[in-house]
Amino acid sequence: MSAHRVVVVGGGFGGLQAALKLRGANVDVTIVDRSNYHLFQPLTYQVATGGLSPAEIAYPLRAIVKRARNVRVLLAEVSDFDIDARSVQLRPVGGLPTTPLSYDTLIVSGGSAYSYFGHDDWSEFAAEVKSLESAVAVRGRLLAAFEAAEIESAADRRAAWLTFVVVGGGPTGVEMAGQIGELAHETLRREFRSIDPSMARILVLEATDRILTSFPPSLSAKAARSLERLGVSVLTGREVVGVDGEGVIVKHGGGSEQISSRVVIWAAGVTASALASRLGELSGAEVDRAGRVLTEADLTLPGHPEVFALGDMVRVRGPDGTPTVLPGVAPVAMQQGRYAGSVVRNRLRGRESPPFRYRDKGNLATIGRGAAVADIRGLRLSGLPAWTIWLFVHLWYLVGFRNRILVFTEWALSFFTRGRGARLITDPSKSDVTAPPE
Amino acid sequence: MSAHRVVVVGGGFGGLQAALKLRGANVDVTIVDRSNYHLFQPLTYQVATGGLSPAEIAYPLRAIVKRARNVRVLLAEVSDFDIDARSVQLRPVGGLPTTPLSYDTLIVSGGSAYSYFGHDDWSEFAAEVKSLESAVAVRGRLLAAFEAAEIESAADRRAAWLTFVVVGGGPTGVEMAGQIGELAHETLRREFRSIDPSMARILVLEATDRILTSFPPSLSAKAARSLERLGVSVLTGREVVGVDGEGVIVKHGGGSEQISSRVVIWAAGVTASALASRLGELSGAEVDRAGRVLTEADLTLPGHPEVFALGDMVRVRGPDGTPTVLPGVAPVAMQQGRYAGSVVRNRLRGRESPPFRYRDKGNLATIGRGAAVADIRGLRLSGLPAWTIWLFVHLWYLVGFRNRILVFTEWALSFFTRGRGARLITDPSKSDVTAPPE
Repeated sequence: MSAHRVVVVGGGFGGLQAALKLRGANVDVTIVDRSNYHLFQPLTYQVATGGLSPAEIAYPLRAIVKRARNVRVLLAEVSDFDIDARSVQLRPVGGLPTTPLSYDTLIVSGGSAYSYFGHDDWSEFAAEVKSLESAVAVRGRLLAAFEAAEIESAADRRAAWLTFVVVGGGPTGVEMAGQIGELAHETLRREFRSIDPSMARILVLEATDRILTSFPPSLSAKAARSLERLGVSVLTGREVVGVDGEGVIVKHGGGSEQISSRVVIWAAGVTASALASRLGELSGAEVDRAGRVLTEADLTLPGHPEVFALGDMVRVRGPDGTPTVLPGVAPVAMQQGRYAGSVVRNRLRGRESPPFRYRDKGNLATIGRGAAVADIRGLRLSGLPAWTIWLFVHLWYLVGFRNRILVFTEWALSFFTRGRGARLITDPSKSDVTAPPE
Repeated sequence: MSAHRVVVVGGGFGGLQAALKLRGANVDVTIVDRSNYHLFQPLTYQVATGGLSPAEIAYPLRAIVKRARNVRVLLAEVSDFDIDARSVQLRPVGGLPTTPLSYDTLIVSGGSAYSYFGHDDWSEFAAEVKSLESAVAVRGRLLAAFEAAEIESAADRRAAWLTFVVVGGGPTGVEMAGQIGELAHETLRREFRSIDPSMARILVLEATDRILTSFPPSLSAKAARSLERLGVSVLTGREVVGVDGEGVIVKHGGGSEQISSRVVIWAAGVTASALASRLGELSGAEVDRAGRVLTEADLTLPGHPEVFALGDMVRVRGPDGTPTVLPGVAPVAMQQGRYAGSVVRNRLRGRESPPFRYRDKGNLATIGRGAAVADIRGLRLSGLPAWTIWLFVHLWYLVGFRNRILVFTEWALSFFTRGRGARLITDPSKSDVTAPPE
């Protein structure tokens, strides 16, 4: 008899922890992902601003599960599920034909993407920092804007190149804005001859009345002051009602304003992976407006105890039956992944499992060098103490010894030199020879 | 009176050294490049095989010349020259309109690209390792081939995924093949469940009777043996007469053979930047079949002492009047760049300059961990001694303190763990959300 087959869709925080929890168990685990690496997403903004290289925050999935002999990895996209026949439809790399993959247990952790509040056309002009590819693209756009400003002779157009708009004052928006501030005021200092990079206007547009709403108001205020010190203007109560090639249109109070900008970074709402709504459709589970599927208290789909869904693409039914939205952060997905793995292990031994319970270990956001805010079970920290905690927590959770050493080296170098090592504008469409003269 | 204006086209080895030589002189220097970084091209093959990250071998041009207050950098493509009016036509980043840039002295170092012997259609199927972008693309193709082989069920198709053909047995071809050998036999070992990566067939196809023809035959033989130890087959006397989606067609002796392969890496002939032939056209200087322009003994164009051309896009007229082709390596370009800078400095002081003379410091090629060949003014080394020299020479010439430390750290980690840190398959066309089910 062959072992119980577990298919894990997504090698992010949730999926990876589920697979690792099943290491050595009497199950055959298959992780399916479109990428060959696990991405440490909380640091993608540092790739987007040239502080870290992509490979420093991404680790090959195969290398992570190398020694887990009952775990295999397939590089493929999941194009559909058949939850009655218990199979997943795979579209593999290399243009190979789609192929079904059967499971006894399915664990889906497909993550989320940015949503543009129904204005998908805005995404054509706004940049975002989610995948490695998008972070590398943002890096190129940010750096190229300073280059264009150096060449541009008209003052108004130069100002538009040097206006950076970050939409959304959550952790990603705050971190991005802080890093752009450091880039403009420190890293690029004295590197240009026609412009002064520190003249850059960096704006954070937040629709509510404060940034970092998941933190206590006192820490939001501290974060805002830290941003201002880096030359970032925090504008609250601003609703973005338009994004195009010229910049953004912002509603504020009664009126609206056009802000000319060539680099708009979108860090506002998110929408769940399309896999979530598909699971809802197939199982009858509720799907909310953000596309999240509602799971039972044990993270399974109603009527399908063999299908787990987790991470920021789900809402979980609480002990009293009401749906709960947990924060879309790595610790939630990791705890849910480990939980799903342990439920599978318990079932193999015929044991019951308690419902999933999230243990909140605290909330961290960084603004810049030496500046962060931390809310750890009521303990509120800011400045250097918070930043030190942030630093060690992130180094600790970075998968892979090699990445820890490299990131630590990069950060140590940046701390002392204020430089940043990965400031490349790369463009895959660029050919190798200088363009032939016409 | 404004200072003498020097325009340097290309921020590679030649252009950068020319600009740095003019640092602090009474001239205004402008470096024009399409990339915002100086690329340490001798190590691009390590990016292509996941050993190093792009940013570790590329350094921002602005950071390099930051303290040279008389040097500025413009990110733009040169679309044409007007050597009578003494101006260069620039096509800047960001879609800004083309604009002329006037010079008193022009230094052009546009480099070269791979040529496909008149079969440009082959380039659609073959990958190459020249720019950072192409290296990242090769990395993705190499790694994705192993992934596809893991999923592919038909034996013949799996074999084609696991056949890696390197066309050309020069230093780049040898280095690439050696690194693919290490990747297959060491790095990826035990990471797959359906295939054994060490079953990969890695072929070097060389048209002449030995690899590394710029080295003495004894070192070619040693390099071939080192490659065989890494599982690479060196096939000499093989002329490639076709490249398509199925693989390559090779002529050998009387007959020809089809080799099925999904990853063909082109490391054969090079052709000069189109800027070289354009300079030839404008000045009347001779242009050879490889597109190289023939310069006078002082690297200037005939009749245009104010225009220098250098690097692997030129041939230089020797003391006896005959054209000389120098090796297309970094030291030649660097010496020529420094020479051009010193000629400009001498002229400002009214001094004559001796003709350019290349000082050959030796020839190095690496095959893998602990394996290299070195020919240093007749001193022939191989194995660990040659590799140690190779290591320190490359670390020494890497621009930038930060990059030296990071590359050293990566190499130290690789040496002991046999892992490689930058094994990412990145694809800018990939979106963030898992594909919606049909």
